[in-house]
Amino acid sequence: MNDLCDKPIVGLNIPAAVGMTLAEVCTPALIVDLDAFESNVATLRSRLQSAGVRLRAHSKTHKSVDIARYQIEQGGACGICCQKVAEAEVMVAGGIGDVLVSNQVTDPGKIDRLARLALKARLLVCVDDPANVEALAAAAGRHGATLECLVEIDCGARRCGVEPGAAAVAIADKIAASGGLEFAGLQAYQGAAQHIRSFDERRTALDSAIRQTRDTIDQLAGAGLSCDIVAGAGTGSYYFEAGSGIYNEMQCGSYIFMDADYQRVLDQNGAGISEFSNSLFVWTSIMSKTRELEAVCDAGLKVLSADSGLPVVYGRDDIEYTSISDEHGVLADPHNRLRLNDKLKLIPGHCDPTCNLHDWYVGIRNDRVECLWPVSARGMAF
Amino acid sequence: MNDLCDKPIVGLNIPAAVGMTLAEVCTPALIVDLDAFESNVATLRSRLQSAGVRLRAHSKTHKSVDIARYQIEQGGACGICCQKVAEAEVMVAGGIGDVLVSNQVTDPGKIDRLARLALKARLLVCVDDPANVEALAAAAGRHGATLECLVEIDCGARRCGVEPGAAAVAIADKIAASGGLEFAGLQAYQGAAQHIRSFDERRTALDSAIRQTRDTIDQLAGAGLSCDIVAGAGTGSYYFEAGSGIYNEMQCGSYIFMDADYQRVLDQNGAGISEFSNSLFVWTSIMSKTRELEAVCDAGLKVLSADSGLPVVYGRDDIEYTSISDEHGVLADPHNRLRLNDKLKLIPGHCDPTCNLHDWYVGIRNDRVECLWPVSARGMAF
Repeated sequence: MNDLCDKPIVGLNIPAAVGMTLAEVCTPALIVDLDAFESNVATLRSRLQSAGVRLRAHSKTHKSVDIARYQIEQGGACGICCQKVAEAEVMVAGGIGDVLVSNQVTDPGKIDRLARLALKARLLVCVDDPANVEALAAAAGRHGATLECLVEIDCGARRCGVEPGAAAVAIADKIAASGGLEFAGLQAYQGAAQHIRSFDERRTALDSAIRQTRDTIDQLAGAGLSCDIVAGAGTGSYYFEAGSGIYNEMQCGSYIFMDADYQRVLDQNGAGISEFSNSLFVWTSIMSKTRELEAVCDAGLKVLSADSGLPVVYGRDDIEYTSISDEHGVLADPHNRLRLNDKLKLIPGHCDPTCNLHDWYVGIRNDRVECLWPVSARGMAF
Repeated sequence: MNDLCDKPIVGLNIPAAVGMTLAEVCTPALIVDLDAFESNVATLRSRLQSAGVRLRAHSKTHKSVDIARYQIEQGGACGICCQKVAEAEVMVAGGIGDVLVSNQVTDPGKIDRLARLALKARLLVCVDDPANVEALAAAAGRHGATLECLVEIDCGARRCGVEPGAAAVAIADKIAASGGLEFAGLQAYQGAAQHIRSFDERRTALDSAIRQTRDTIDQLAGAGLSCDIVAGAGTGSYYFEAGSGIYNEMQCGSYIFMDADYQRVLDQNGAGISEFSNSLFVWTSIMSKTRELEAVCDAGLKVLSADSGLPVVYGRDDIEYTSISDEHGVLADPHNRLRLNDKLKLIPGHCDPTCNLHDWYVGIRNDRVECLWPVSARGMAF
């Protein structure tokens, strides 16, 4: 405490410096257990290699150029997915050469940016509307760019995507006939199935998605259109798509970090998904302890997204995070063990929107800060 | 669409440029109706002046130096509140001269930063622990600074704060006896009462808080300690504290913006709080429309905090936001009126954590962008 001036200054939005001990990292910070993270990356690489399918890792989870590069260089990824043009701009600027915007881009200004970006990297985009095909083709033509297009089908999530079958073939036809565009295949992501708890119910949802995707592939073939890419899957379902015989690009994102909600998704043995372990935590301090059986920590809604439930205290079955407000969490402390300035690791309820709240990942190995990675595309929602 | 190059470039994290029409603002962006915002600021100023109490506006809502300055220069605020040392650092750097950290600061590194900041501005902080008094005094002494301290009492919210009465007096005594510290009064914020729907139930909660605060003031007086500041209140309760005869500083934050949850809080006539109107919206576009009775917009969890419920579509009783995911919202469109690229204003469920997701406020008047304000302390959680 008396030699603070001899240490790297942290504060404002910078929680740590390389070389600090974990105990010295400012709270509330987003920390990554690098051993667990690297193990998760290696596990999925090996599983997908065995299944003979590609990984196009989803960067919406992490929004980090450093992590995207690691997924490509070490994790077997052929490229990445983004959800927003602005995310893609950041990733291409960071040296990523193969980017799928796994989402519709329909705004004229964004379409223009997408076409310009396609001059710098391989760019793919999802389409579910015929008028959108025309707008994309016009922009590609204007800039002399090529945009590869996946037709997105709604295979059960009821979000974006046209109906499987004839509607999808009509859009694919239109893409194939448009200068500046190339028909590259199908986007068939069953997002609503990722967090279904029961393995059997998840299988039922995926069986249906796979059947609809197969039917659409067949109808496309009947129209003389072949799919280089059949894409979809997430951390909760890739097991099914990878074994389907028709999907060839997996878009898993959360597998690198996991979160409290994904831990409630069960495998075929009724246990939690066990091949990936928690590598992402919010590091928090006790900042008020005035009641015997409760304590208050400094991590609330501005550093933890509560949409999928409250965070879980890592490695401490005796402590429960019971309520959240903007800057505080109340913890049940039934054995009155917590003291002021004690520090805890919280497993976020939902990793993606939690990462988007932070400016930095603090990479930890052997209780030391090994690296700081900027959340390069944080806030890039446009 | 063909003359995009003649327009200011937006993209990455910049949604707009001054002079654009609202229709041209990139989505999903955080927009402020400047007329409604200014009217809200003027309304609270006038109400608190009539009640003879001060406003210390809470900057946790907006995290914006521009808005804080406006609240002081135009809104009658004597200063501002922050929740984090990093927020206070940003506000002092932005020229704010009177800042209460309405929260506990117990980490040694943060205490050091707080004491250094007190050399540049009037700094007040809340305390609920005797050992924390010693640590604050040591830091103030080390830097030759003065920290004014409010003893925080738990008057019903069960978050931070000591029990009212003797425990509070003991801490106040210790502050008064510590070099570098000044005892400035009480923090008595009933945070749990702000969103109670029923006026009568809210009054019951506040009656109890006011009674406990008055008792503590009396016990402090018995110990020879007087309270320059008796602070608390929020947008949902200031009516009670301002009329209590004992509170003299109101800490309202949300009144400048309002949100969907505050609209569900009722006044004494059983109507919604009517003195403030919605000035804060997330501007969103329809980016997929493949089903007759639904549409998908581009504003999800990364631009809207869902902790207090889903957003409400402003001015459109015919459209309902029915489900949220990371980058999407699904809208019920029972009359099939929405079309691709239509734009809507969404009232966030909860304003504070929503603002913290954005980098810019886009200020709108008469359908034109009048200003861009950075969310200066966004992500400043340390």
